[in-house]
Amino acid sequence: MSRLLPAIALLFLPAIALHAQDTASVDADLVKQSVSLRNIAMQNSNAWEILESLTQEVGPRLAGSPGDQAAVAWAMLKMQDLGFENVRAQDVTVPHWERGQLSVQITNPHPQSLVAVALGGSVGTGEEGIEAPVLMVQNLEELAKLPASQVEGTIVFLPGRMERHKDGSGYGPAVAKRSSGASVAASLGARALVIRSVGTDNNRLGHTGAMRYDLAQPRIPAVALSNPDSDILEYQLSQGQPVSLRINLSARHLDPARSANVIGEIPGSDLPEEIVIIGGHLDSWDLGTGAIDDGAGVAITMEAARQILLSGKRPKRTIRVVLFANEEFGLSGATEYARLAEVEKHILGMEGDFGAGKVWQLASRVAPEALYKVEAMQNMLADLGVEPGSNDSGGGADISPLLKAGMPVLAPRQDGTEYFDIHHTANDTLDKVNRDDLDQNVAIYTALTWFAANVEGDFGRLPVEETPESQ
Amino acid sequence: MSRLLPAIALLFLPAIALHAQDTASVDADLVKQSVSLRNIAMQNSNAWEILESLTQEVGPRLAGSPGDQAAVAWAMLKMQDLGFENVRAQDVTVPHWERGQLSVQITNPHPQSLVAVALGGSVGTGEEGIEAPVLMVQNLEELAKLPASQVEGTIVFLPGRMERHKDGSGYGPAVAKRSSGASVAASLGARALVIRSVGTDNNRLGHTGAMRYDLAQPRIPAVALSNPDSDILEYQLSQGQPVSLRINLSARHLDPARSANVIGEIPGSDLPEEIVIIGGHLDSWDLGTGAIDDGAGVAITMEAARQILLSGKRPKRTIRVVLFANEEFGLSGATEYARLAEVEKHILGMEGDFGAGKVWQLASRVAPEALYKVEAMQNMLADLGVEPGSNDSGGGADISPLLKAGMPVLAPRQDGTEYFDIHHTANDTLDKVNRDDLDQNVAIYTALTWFAANVEGDFGRLPVEETPESQ
Repeated sequence: MSRLLPAIALLFLPAIALHAQDTASVDADLVKQSVSLRNIAMQNSNAWEILESLTQEVGPRLAGSPGDQAAVAWAMLKMQDLGFENVRAQDVTVPHWERGQLSVQITNPHPQSLVAVALGGSVGTGEEGIEAPVLMVQNLEELAKLPASQVEGTIVFLPGRMERHKDGSGYGPAVAKRSSGASVAASLGARALVIRSVGTDNNRLGHTGAMRYDLAQPRIPAVALSNPDSDILEYQLSQGQPVSLRINLSARHLDPARSANVIGEIPGSDLPEEIVIIGGHLDSWDLGTGAIDDGAGVAITMEAARQILLSGKRPKRTIRVVLFANEEFGLSGATEYARLAEVEKHILGMEGDFGAGKVWQLASRVAPEALYKVEAMQNMLADLGVEPGSNDSGGGADISPLLKAGMPVLAPRQDGTEYFDIHHTANDTLDKVNRDDLDQNVAIYTALTWFAANVEGDFGRLPVEETPESQ
Repeated sequence: MSRLLPAIALLFLPAIALHAQDTASVDADLVKQSVSLRNIAMQNSNAWEILESLTQEVGPRLAGSPGDQAAVAWAMLKMQDLGFENVRAQDVTVPHWERGQLSVQITNPHPQSLVAVALGGSVGTGEEGIEAPVLMVQNLEELAKLPASQVEGTIVFLPGRMERHKDGSGYGPAVAKRSSGASVAASLGARALVIRSVGTDNNRLGHTGAMRYDLAQPRIPAVALSNPDSDILEYQLSQGQPVSLRINLSARHLDPARSANVIGEIPGSDLPEEIVIIGGHLDSWDLGTGAIDDGAGVAITMEAARQILLSGKRPKRTIRVVLFANEEFGLSGATEYARLAEVEKHILGMEGDFGAGKVWQLASRVAPEALYKVEAMQNMLADLGVEPGSNDSGGGADISPLLKAGMPVLAPRQDGTEYFDIHHTANDTLDKVNRDDLDQNVAIYTALTWFAANVEGDFGRLPVEETPESQ
């Protein structure tokens, strides 16, 4: 275990040692039940059918779009069909952005059209478009150091490439240019931002994703080239002649729209007021059908709860499945859920939002005195390849407001080696999901959910960082 | 050798046996020279730089387009820069088709936009578009058997999937629906044809490619869905409700345009009238930058000839590099070249038009009495992984008119396992080429070209199937 623990978790090692005996004291029957449910789920999972229905019928479901509304209707019906109780839609107001049409062309020295996508939230160029010389800057830090005289009037190009890692750790360092690059460039007088896609593939498909404008700076258009198209632009820039781009983008912001968190439950028998919350986000980007992001999280958690329903056994605590509105474009659903929730009743949360890769580690963030329960859960999953993880998990974007308000989390970590080949592209479609891996996820969520909903005592509370209202 | 020979080649086995002694009689010095050139080429190949310049500067070059003209200008300059003699452009008239804009949407029962591309040569839908119920038929044979009453007024969907094979043999069976599907459907009253892309990948990128209209039938629009989009359509069709599609396509045919075969030579010292012809096609489809189809063939053959130039040795025969115009959309350049050529002076041809995968086999079509020379050439390449091949090769599309007029051919066969993931899509870009494999190709073409240009005696003649004028 310790080999995989980051420094922060070492603080808890004495606690683990103290509770070493308690591990044995976890109810053996509960472990047996959990493993039995796990094995049945692995054989009988219908997650694929749920995911197939969501992707092939509803398809893209960007917050505020007609697809988003179709997804809410789909989820309400599906939750009812699967037999959940207290199925309801919790109103959420979401931003509504449309990407419109985009064309990007090298106009000098060697004209060529480039494949690109608008970043989520980008303004358009106006009908006249923007044509300007390209200034390539290796990264945001270098850009921030440049004098405005060098940047003014240019289109800034940030060419950095994302690294591939099993745990997705290449994403953080690569994504800053997408999130804040436009405003840094605009603060120096740039007319537009072009980035190499934040993605690990070589497909001719751009990776979109949310960007934010600093309100103190002019809002300039921001687009991402596919990796092969970034190569073309870099090649022409390397040949010593000035390079110009033309960008025409008709993206626009519309009035905020109504969406919903969709919620269903298996009410608890003994402790119905205590909630184990599991879920994913219902919205997706508009380019793909949202199979790995986040149809997989939706299907895995719905199916895990369904497996418990099918068993005929009633959990002691309430199991609540929440399909969050608009994760991609500002966590609207998560924020609203946390604002209205009685967070103290949520004894544990688990979120699936990293595709359907095989689970290889169980991370967590629980109170030190409850770590022995995490250890017991990891033990019962070890034969599926699940290693011990650290106790400093952030849980996931949608449950992070609950975590910050004190709720412990479990985080089954998935193999993300190929996740960022697909993430936020048109390629996010059902065929990218491996059915066996999806079912391994379902089995693991089923076992963990059952265990958490029935274990003696809770997982403690975390230090409160923020109350939901303060966000 | 025999293990790999198809039945037809068995006919020649007695010839091989007869010439077994002659193998030893191939000039040992020539073999030594060829292997030496091969080894130098492998180390010093500049094929990547040629390919990079063509794809990253010129990019897409569909026959008749501005990119096609840019490619001709590029090739003339490059041939001169590389030091070839008699560099010239041979005028060729080519068709000129523009794909325009395409949108394909499922309108019922579950609306969703689908990713598709127009097939090359398709007519448009008119501004009003076409909306009609979808009739899925497993293949062309089944379609041909249906009564017109069942097909009339529908959009026919042919869902067959191409198989992946190292030798690309899945292409032939899969491509018939692309070539002739529209006219078969139109003959039964269909309003449009939709096919699953002829490709082995799962990217959200359609595969284009030439289609032909039977002049006796109405011309209806023809489009290819990407594989994931075909899955979506198949899924909705499988749910028991009628499915409708809307197609809007603004493709159009323009007036024929001027293009050119670009030709350069290394004149022979002793037998300048005898020609060894090598080459590929200069045009590409409009979606990608034509890296594997056929920038690779262009770069491999130009660089092989350049390696011979660099050696300072003069070949006995003339080595002619021909970059053919418009292979993709009707073999215009190949037909014109053969029409004007003195075919009898062409003692051997080699064409690269299957990407840049590693060469694993040397196939041929030479007169039986010359087979021992092919055997000697394969022997000198065996350590690079090149196995003996059959003597029934078709050579390649662009040299097939010469072959039919009696010219023998060599065919270094490349590993095409991944070729049809990329073929005729936007994904046909430089990054898909492996530099080491590209250079292995160059080394092999260099050795074979040198050998053929210097070997004692020729490769015989093939039975004449057609004279170029009769085509």
